[in-house]
Amino acid sequence: MEWKKTMNHYVEMINSALEGSIEIGEKPNAKVMEAMQYSLFAGGKRLRPVLALAVCDLLGKPVERALPYACALEMIHTYSLIHDDLPAMDDDDTRRGKPTNHKVYGEGIAILAGDGLLNLAFETMIHHALTLDESMDGLKAMQTVADASGVNGMIGGQTADLLNEGKKMDEEMLAYIHRHKTGALITASVKAGAYMAGVDEVEATRWEKIGYALGMAFQIQDDLLDIEGDAAEMGKPVGSDERNEKATYPALYGIEKSRQKVDELTKEVLETLKPYGEKADFLRSLTEALVNRRS
Amino acid sequence: MEWKKTMNHYVEMINSALEGSIEIGEKPNAKVMEAMQYSLFAGGKRLRPVLALAVCDLLGKPVERALPYACALEMIHTYSLIHDDLPAMDDDDTRRGKPTNHKVYGEGIAILAGDGLLNLAFETMIHHALTLDESMDGLKAMQTVADASGVNGMIGGQTADLLNEGKKMDEEMLAYIHRHKTGALITASVKAGAYMAGVDEVEATRWEKIGYALGMAFQIQDDLLDIEGDAAEMGKPVGSDERNEKATYPALYGIEKSRQKVDELTKEVLETLKPYGEKADFLRSLTEALVNRRS
Repeated sequence: MEWKKTMNHYVEMINSALEGSIEIGEKPNAKVMEAMQYSLFAGGKRLRPVLALAVCDLLGKPVERALPYACALEMIHTYSLIHDDLPAMDDDDTRRGKPTNHKVYGEGIAILAGDGLLNLAFETMIHHALTLDESMDGLKAMQTVADASGVNGMIGGQTADLLNEGKKMDEEMLAYIHRHKTGALITASVKAGAYMAGVDEVEATRWEKIGYALGMAFQIQDDLLDIEGDAAEMGKPVGSDERNEKATYPALYGIEKSRQKVDELTKEVLETLKPYGEKADFLRSLTEALVNRRS
Repeated sequence: MEWKKTMNHYVEMINSALEGSIEIGEKPNAKVMEAMQYSLFAGGKRLRPVLALAVCDLLGKPVERALPYACALEMIHTYSLIHDDLPAMDDDDTRRGKPTNHKVYGEGIAILAGDGLLNLAFETMIHHALTLDESMDGLKAMQTVADASGVNGMIGGQTADLLNEGKKMDEEMLAYIHRHKTGALITASVKAGAYMAGVDEVEATRWEKIGYALGMAFQIQDDLLDIEGDAAEMGKPVGSDERNEKATYPALYGIEKSRQKVDELTKEVLETLKPYGEKADFLRSLTEALVNRRS
């Protein structure tokens, strides 16, 4: 499968850049750097950064342009997981089969490691934007990421999720949580990649829509896997979301309707990718793999 | 006193801009916005944003240029206090005589409110930089703030502070904590204000040095007040740092030597301000007020 080779190539680029961004020295901040590194390399699929690189690549620009923003997206995703796993939040002991950050480093360092990763995401983007001849593309990509990760994006979604745990939820609230908690950052990954390829606002909006449909499909598929999945494959207790009565699409609409929704959203993504022809082959294959995955 | 009028003017500008940056609606994120607002308006002196405005003003540029960066600095300072007060960190129930964020909103929301403020700081700076004709000044100010608040700045200092609580500390470690935990952000406030006035690297470095000396003087004075202070005036239990065996200058060098150090640093600030003549009157008065304060 050709697309898997491309995937590996992107992932290697991302991992190498992420490794370079954390230099653990002998300084008094070594412990928080170590904690940041631990979670950054705890088995993430790199979906968000891969999307950013893939879109920039498809639009004919060097992926190196999008790489710092791709890394920033992964740092933000990782920090959100560290804070989400804390006892005051979801209180999870393991993630992807490994002890969560606070289980290894203690709660204080885990909080600081999350803060450090969020800050590092912006440091990384800003430093790169300063090297560009035309800094506007960098600023627009940065704005896309910042808006998606803030209180009107991811943090808003986490707030709603936290406050509604154990409560009966209506469609509107579920949609808000999905759109913000996971959807916003995936959408931003796609749109930021497009900005780094120098697109105008019309094309940026088209990519935003693709990102949104892809993010929703991914999230609902994740919810379905949580119900149907296999504990060993997922690396977390199956049905844990249901046990905590968390907001999930299948819990509200049932499994059959959820599968239909994933199909609809997938079709929408594939339809919007059509004009890009062969160049979109990687994104097509990635989309299909994401919605057909078993873990 | 003329300088107090200027101070009030700056503080009003800052408060009004901060108020405008938090719009609490009916949305599911309202609770986290409320928590962010609570701590932003819990009695902070606005030292960091005032410094940014004052330097920009002194250098002859409209303070409005520095205002978004000033607000960002206050947001970052506030988020660091919210996270620092958490049970897993300093475990403080009150700050400036008011219940700490997690005491009012719970730990989960307090963590998210901190995250939200850090993110909002960058949103604010990025949105403003996008409106500038010459975005480089904005990016340089942003870089200054980002570097100061990250793992090689403030978060590094908090890590060292957390890991050394209750331990006997040497000069080197104390210097690291002072320089990073509080010093870095105060230094950045001064330097970012200078960048927004369009200074070159030589002048930016001069302002960085002023900021550094001022930040250190402020921090040591804070440590002295914690020992000597009056509980009612400070709004927190006097000697709480000593009780937790925290890193303080007086604990290592004694009160007399600490006072001398404050004097030396103050002289250094005033000396470096000399070439600016009358225009530096406000900064001179502010510096003297800071090191002579009783609370």
